[in-house]
Amino acid sequence: MKTMLISVINGPNLNMLGEREPQVYGSETLDDINSALGRAARDRGVDVEFFQSNSEGSLIDRLHECSRRSDGVILNAGAYTHYSIAIRDAIAAIRPPVVEVHLSNVHAREEFRRVSVIAPACVGQISGFGSTSYLLALEALVRIYEERS
Amino acid sequence: MKTMLISVINGPNLNMLGEREPQVYGSETLDDINSALGRAARDRGVDVEFFQSNSEGSLIDRLHECSRRSDGVILNAGAYTHYSIAIRDAIAAIRPPVVEVHLSNVHAREEFRRVSVIAPACVGQISGFGSTSYLLALEALVRIYEERS
Amino acid sequence: MKTMLISVINGPNLNMLGEREPQVYGSETLDDINSALGRAARDRGVDVEFFQSNSEGSLIDRLHECSRRSDGVILNAGAYTHYSIAIRDAIAAIRPPVVEVHLSNVHAREEFRRVSVIAPACVGQISGFGSTSYLLALEALVRIYEERS
Amino acid sequence: MKTMLISVINGPNLNMLGEREPQVYGSETLDDINSALGRAARDRGVDVEFFQSNSEGSLIDRLHECSRRSDGVILNAGAYTHYSIAIRDAIAAIRPPVVEVHLSNVHAREEFRRVSVIAPACVGQISGFGSTSYLLALEALVRIYEERS
Amino acid sequence: MKTMLISVINGPNLNMLGEREPQVYGSETLDDINSALGRAARDRGVDVEFFQSNSEGSLIDRLHECSRRSDGVILNAGAYTHYSIAIRDAIAAIRPPVVEVHLSNVHAREEFRRVSVIAPACVGQISGFGSTSYLLALEALVRIYEERS
Amino acid sequence: MKTMLISVINGPNLNMLGEREPQVYGSETLDDINSALGRAARDRGVDVEFFQSNSEGSLIDRLHECSRRSDGVILNAGAYTHYSIAIRDAIAAIRPPVVEVHLSNVHAREEFRRVSVIAPACVGQISGFGSTSYLLALEALVRIYEERS
Amino acid sequence: MKTMLISVINGPNLNMLGEREPQVYGSETLDDINSALGRAARDRGVDVEFFQSNSEGSLIDRLHECSRRSDGVILNAGAYTHYSIAIRDAIAAIRPPVVEVHLSNVHAREEFRRVSVIAPACVGQISGFGSTSYLLALEALVRIYEERS
Amino acid sequence: MKTMLISVINGPNLNMLGEREPQVYGSETLDDINSALGRAARDRGVDVEFFQSNSEGSLIDRLHECSRRSDGVILNAGAYTHYSIAIRDAIAAIRPPVVEVHLSNVHAREEFRRVSVIAPACVGQISGFGSTSYLLALEALVRIYEERS
Amino acid sequence: MKTMLISVINGPNLNMLGEREPQVYGSETLDDINSALGRAARDRGVDVEFFQSNSEGSLIDRLHECSRRSDGVILNAGAYTHYSIAIRDAIAAIRPPVVEVHLSNVHAREEFRRVSVIAPACVGQISGFGSTSYLLALEALVRIYEERS
Amino acid sequence: MKTMLISVINGPNLNMLGEREPQVYGSETLDDINSALGRAARDRGVDVEFFQSNSEGSLIDRLHECSRRSDGVILNAGAYTHYSIAIRDAIAAIRPPVVEVHLSNVHAREEFRRVSVIAPACVGQISGFGSTSYLLALEALVRIYEERS
Amino acid sequence: MKTMLISVINGPNLNMLGEREPQVYGSETLDDINSALGRAARDRGVDVEFFQSNSEGSLIDRLHECSRRSDGVILNAGAYTHYSIAIRDAIAAIRPPVVEVHLSNVHAREEFRRVSVIAPACVGQISGFGSTSYLLALEALVRIYEERS
Amino acid sequence: MKTMLISVINGPNLNMLGEREPQVYGSETLDDINSALGRAARDRGVDVEFFQSNSEGSLIDRLHECSRRSDGVILNAGAYTHYSIAIRDAIAAIRPPVVEVHLSNVHAREEFRRVSVIAPACVGQISGFGSTSYLLALEALVRIYEERS
Repeated sequence: MKTMLISVINGPNLNMLGEREPQVYGSETLDDINSALGRAARDRGVDVEFFQSNSEGSLIDRLHECSRRSDGVILNAGAYTHYSIAIRDAIAAIRPPVVEVHLSNVHAREEFRRVSVIAPACVGQISGFGSTSYLLALEALVRIYEERS
Repeated sequence: MKTMLISVINGPNLNMLGEREPQVYGSETLDDINSALGRAARDRGVDVEFFQSNSEGSLIDRLHECSRRSDGVILNAGAYTHYSIAIRDAIAAIRPPVVEVHLSNVHAREEFRRVSVIAPACVGQISGFGSTSYLLALEALVRIYEERS
Repeated sequence: MKTMLISVINGPNLNMLGEREPQVYGSETLDDINSALGRAARDRGVDVEFFQSNSEGSLIDRLHECSRRSDGVILNAGAYTHYSIAIRDAIAAIRPPVVEVHLSNVHAREEFRRVSVIAPACVGQISGFGSTSYLLALEALVRIYEERS
Repeated sequence: MKTMLISVINGPNLNMLGEREPQVYGSETLDDINSALGRAARDRGVDVEFFQSNSEGSLIDRLHECSRRSDGVILNAGAYTHYSIAIRDAIAAIRPPVVEVHLSNVHAREEFRRVSVIAPACVGQISGFGSTSYLLALEALVRIYEERS
Repeated sequence: MKTMLISVINGPNLNMLGEREPQVYGSETLDDINSALGRAARDRGVDVEFFQSNSEGSLIDRLHECSRRSDGVILNAGAYTHYSIAIRDAIAAIRPPVVEVHLSNVHAREEFRRVSVIAPACVGQISGFGSTSYLLALEALVRIYEERS
Repeated sequence: MKTMLISVINGPNLNMLGEREPQVYGSETLDDINSALGRAARDRGVDVEFFQSNSEGSLIDRLHECSRRSDGVILNAGAYTHYSIAIRDAIAAIRPPVVEVHLSNVHAREEFRRVSVIAPACVGQISGFGSTSYLLALEALVRIYEERS
Repeated sequence: MKTMLISVINGPNLNMLGEREPQVYGSETLDDINSALGRAARDRGVDVEFFQSNSEGSLIDRLHECSRRSDGVILNAGAYTHYSIAIRDAIAAIRPPVVEVHLSNVHAREEFRRVSVIAPACVGQISGFGSTSYLLALEALVRIYEERS
Repeated sequence: MKTMLISVINGPNLNMLGEREPQVYGSETLDDINSALGRAARDRGVDVEFFQSNSEGSLIDRLHECSRRSDGVILNAGAYTHYSIAIRDAIAAIRPPVVEVHLSNVHAREEFRRVSVIAPACVGQISGFGSTSYLLALEALVRIYEERS
Repeated sequence: MKTMLISVINGPNLNMLGEREPQVYGSETLDDINSALGRAARDRGVDVEFFQSNSEGSLIDRLHECSRRSDGVILNAGAYTHYSIAIRDAIAAIRPPVVEVHLSNVHAREEFRRVSVIAPACVGQISGFGSTSYLLALEALVRIYEERS
Repeated sequence: MKTMLISVINGPNLNMLGEREPQVYGSETLDDINSALGRAARDRGVDVEFFQSNSEGSLIDRLHECSRRSDGVILNAGAYTHYSIAIRDAIAAIRPPVVEVHLSNVHAREEFRRVSVIAPACVGQISGFGSTSYLLALEALVRIYEERS
Repeated sequence: MKTMLISVINGPNLNMLGEREPQVYGSETLDDINSALGRAARDRGVDVEFFQSNSEGSLIDRLHECSRRSDGVILNAGAYTHYSIAIRDAIAAIRPPVVEVHLSNVHAREEFRRVSVIAPACVGQISGFGSTSYLLALEALVRIYEERS
Repeated sequence: MKTMLISVINGPNLNMLGEREPQVYGSETLDDINSALGRAARDRGVDVEFFQSNSEGSLIDRLHECSRRSDGVILNAGAYTHYSIAIRDAIAAIRPPVVEVHLSNVHAREEFRRVSVIAPACVGQISGFGSTSYLLALEALVRIYEERS
């Protein structure tokens, strides 16, 4: 039987993690988060792949590529969360379920960060737990996958 | 060492789970969810207690009681999520971290369900994964507890 | 054959009828209205029961109790009409049809009284006819009951 | 003693009833409704007259004519409900009380259908009961007439 | 086989074409446009009929008449486009598909001209091509007719 | 030399003047106002003609007819003032200057009466002086006519 | 018998008339307008006095002074029209009727110029007739004075 | 002569005073405030009684009870201030004057705390003086009582 | 030890008190209020000085002068309360605490009077108690002064 | 003489056509549409070239390249239609006319899809006719080209 | 040849610089800024004059005086920036170009400080560079002057 | 000592300068502006580097690269200014100060161009001086650099 594959997609400025406003986003780098996710994936017996881009178009391209290959997507769309209807449409256009994650609790920040235009196309949203948000998303996707199998 | 205690608080209409609009909320009852949470808590070595009320005032009373006793709160405030500034103030007034959970993806529903007035007082939010939302919240609280210890 | 049972539920401040702003709400007391309803119900051959509370939670509890017992609900949610999404969800969660009534023509009053958040969950709305609003609601429920039988 | 006369006025597209979006408006035609109203009026000992037009101006003309002749008006202004300040002014300009009726529960439909600009000039509003809305309006007008006599 | 019949309906002020603000609407008269449409219809082997009125009610009456007779409607509702919910309901009430046309690019003009309340009831919209807008609408209706046949 | 012709156009419900809400609109009838206007016109050596309709379409038709015949229009569009973009377009489409008049001070009434959608197409606006508003408008049009001659 | 006294009060930037944006405000100076007003007043047998200030406070001081002395006020509050609630309160606080005038048709200009916060305290408004606006206001005040005498 | 009775009613989360966000609400407990109020009442020769509840319904019940018994109410409705139309209606329904108090200057805090839906039913509002707000309210009620006697 | 000095500053139209809309503002004059304040100040052993101006600029000048001299300011900014960001900035720029007072309950009046742009710079607000509002403000300032000493 | 060249530019997610939400966008692929357009172009004697990208920047680059080379642009900007002011500016910056096309009737979908920020820079808009929208756009551009030649 | 004259106009509360909220506005006084500007002007060979007032009317008077005398105006309108349409009109009424300056980056502060009602009448805006903002404005005006000469 | 390095980053459509809407943006090309900036930088003894892209992602990449290398950034984000929260976050994530520049006075143009979502992350903004805006920004950055050294 094919092993489940989860795609982790990170959007704009997440490559700056650790350097960028650490009082908001913490001191972990994206590599730290990905390593932890890799370990958790191994424990759960699933494969995981990583992608980061600052470009809206590249994120959409990547989501399209996941349509056939992946069994679930963890997406931190960064600031695009709040205005990229194009990413929302890409999520709606693909097959695997997408979980929206955020490091900080976006609902407790500036007004414009409380609106997610991509949320209506995602299965669920997890925000506010730092890098743990990603781990919970992984757990959620595995459970959805098991339920649907 | 004292075992961690997590309080699970459910708000209005959640006692109707299983009966109420099953196409939105699924067919599990609140008892089913609580049993699964109890098992997960046992596996994680934490204690868990349950409360449900349709009354805003009783939910606030309960949150106050948790201030000293509990080490973390899982709160599904139901419809109060969208207008109860009084519950928000209660969350801000107490000591333990509160995780906001929702069965359905509130961000994908009616406009008025996308606004959470309690979110700015919570550590994070998990929505859209059915009863799994609660399990992920439990996991999140345990990790926060471990980090702070 | 079981006699039809109609539950009449009155919300906040309606216990003050007769005393409260009589230029808006008239001089009849809630007891006067209930007596007239009782007579009309007897004429129509249906049973009727009464409940009033100032508490949002108690109104929700009562609506839940009606889910199995009643064949129709006449609800004057008072000021909760304009913001209680929790009552709206309770109405959506129960089996019998709910008719929303108002003594005054809420659509002709302050801006904030023109919005009913509970309306989308009710079968219909009757407002502006004083205590006659309740009698018309009773008539409406009987007809709905007859149609569905 | 003069018999009470009730004028029933129907606005735009109501001549299409039965044909038009039956999932929203039911399969009864306007003639069916008028016949039922005629029978109910006879039972109640009142006279009733009918008018329908798609033209805002003709509806206003008719309302003016009712000012002297009629003892009550049942008005389903259709879509004009939501923007015809001219009809609102006509209602305010005439002598008999006007009851606003709607077949569907307008408060449960599109946002723009929840606003009634004519409501502030009417005595009350009944919506959501299909053709029964008209019968309840007739009953309401008779009671108002009896009270005022 | 019955020849396809297309009804061309023009709303308020379009009878003034050629005279009215030619810098916005061009110098062609409505007769010029209708003649060109007549020729194009002949080339395509379809019948075409014309109607213009400044009255909202007459436009609704005409739309109702088209319900059985016509196989497609080209509608330039002029300023009614922006507020006539009654015309919107008329379009929704009839059988043939309605194409919304505008001479000028309404989306490039005053804010209030960018909103079309009738659009949700039409199959499509063509705006900004002067009298060519009508010819494109004719072409579109013929293709829809051919597809459905 | 041709005598100046001024067209006086009154919209919906103005035929009810004297009867309608006299506390707002005074006790003069439309005939009283027209007679006074006729006398003032005679004194000023200008011709005057009168028209009233409750129909938006008829008002537009009349405005079109004035395009060639009249040298100035006094328009009280009644409630259409606040939403008839079609009348606004008709005013913009004709040659003679149009003065907008109101009996009451619309800027001191309900919020929705403070917006005039026809104003941007008129040369000026006079409101609040009862029937004197019309006389001032006549004076204004004569002066504009003299200046342009 | 005391001769009627009319106070003409002009607000900010009206001292720049003739120099300032002549395409909007024309080439007449404030002195030209005042002279014409003086002549018209003489013809009508009333006294007239003039005041101009760029200061909101001085305009309020002057309005207060008019309370006893004047029998009517012509006020062009310039830009203060759109935000000076203090001037509005001053108008409401004094005895004589105040007519609001504008040279240009403020209802046809930028959005923010269509709102007059002082209008609800004035008897009426005249706008769009250049310096003629003042002459019409004088005529209006004389008629109001005659009616009240 | 009967001694004046003042009822002091505190709403949600005020039982947490001293513990709750002390940087906003100070370190005094509700008991401290009540003791000070008791002393001030004694000095002024008036009776005072205290009530606190987190439940909207209980607060309404209590206000109703005050209708006959009390001569004045000091109400800190906490977060209910901003959305409880039901409490507003309760205040409007009772006899004694109600003074709205707040510990912090609500007008200087989050946007949603600047709106008081209960204010229109109260005689006045005092906010921003910590526990002194209550003492000033007591003084204000005594003076109102003396004036009315 | 230096005696405490309290500056009482009154804004636009408050010089008209007693004359101006007595149904809203009462029949006391500003001199009456100031005399009562003077007596109360003497009783409390504090000095008090008075200033009134209709000019925003003069009020700002005066606030600046208070920065060194005064120990507390009682400010009724009248209508400027609702839009003078300049006065707000002046309050924020000075040393002594400023208490905002209003004669009427501004929160119970027109929508635009419910917003205070100066409130965020003041320590607190007292409104609705007529001239007693000033006396309570004096008491409040004395208590703040005593606490800070 | 140079053959007319039309550039067809498709934005985000249009490469997924056929796969993506077929109930909204139909089952044709982008290749199918392009082939049909190629045939229609050949019939009309014009050249046509195709481009698709998910990247806002690449779409802008391509529009710039069209500035000299193309004689008309057919642009389906997908979701960028609703927020890309940068694409709007690119359209305004180039020489050839741009026709905005949409497969679905965007005016009949979610609120946010009814706003086109690019429309003010386009000559016209065609929406709702599936792949026929493109063919009508081609026809429109040819006619504009012929008119201008 | 006449030396260029630049007028520097400072509005409300800027006389308090150095004392007022130094964390926002820095510790330089207005005299410090003016001295630096004087030196920079001398270096550039231009004359400079200074004016400060807290009064909106005086600022308008001064702007009018600059109309003939000055070749450029540097204006920091302080809080009036956000609501003084009268100052905006004064800027539009005068001959020399006006540059709007702000010490702090107003676009990064409270919502209401992000709107400049005077900006549409100015040639440009410089904000956020402390006293350097004025020096940059001087440089900008000199360059504009040189270009126009 | 290391020479200061300033990075000049231009966003979408700025490569079209000179060609694009010259009535708004002038006839200078981006190369012209860069040459002038190069000369000014040489005069000031600072290094300068240039970058332009139409792609939001590339602009973010470049800003990240500047984080270590540059001592100041001049950013004209073009249309992205108005909606790219991702660029705002990139500015907030990097070390050197960023000055926002615009050729035209964006505050005097369409409503949507008056909002800058990137401004809160920049040190200041300069707009309206054509290519001089860049030169002033360079001067501003040099002064900030000198102050911080």
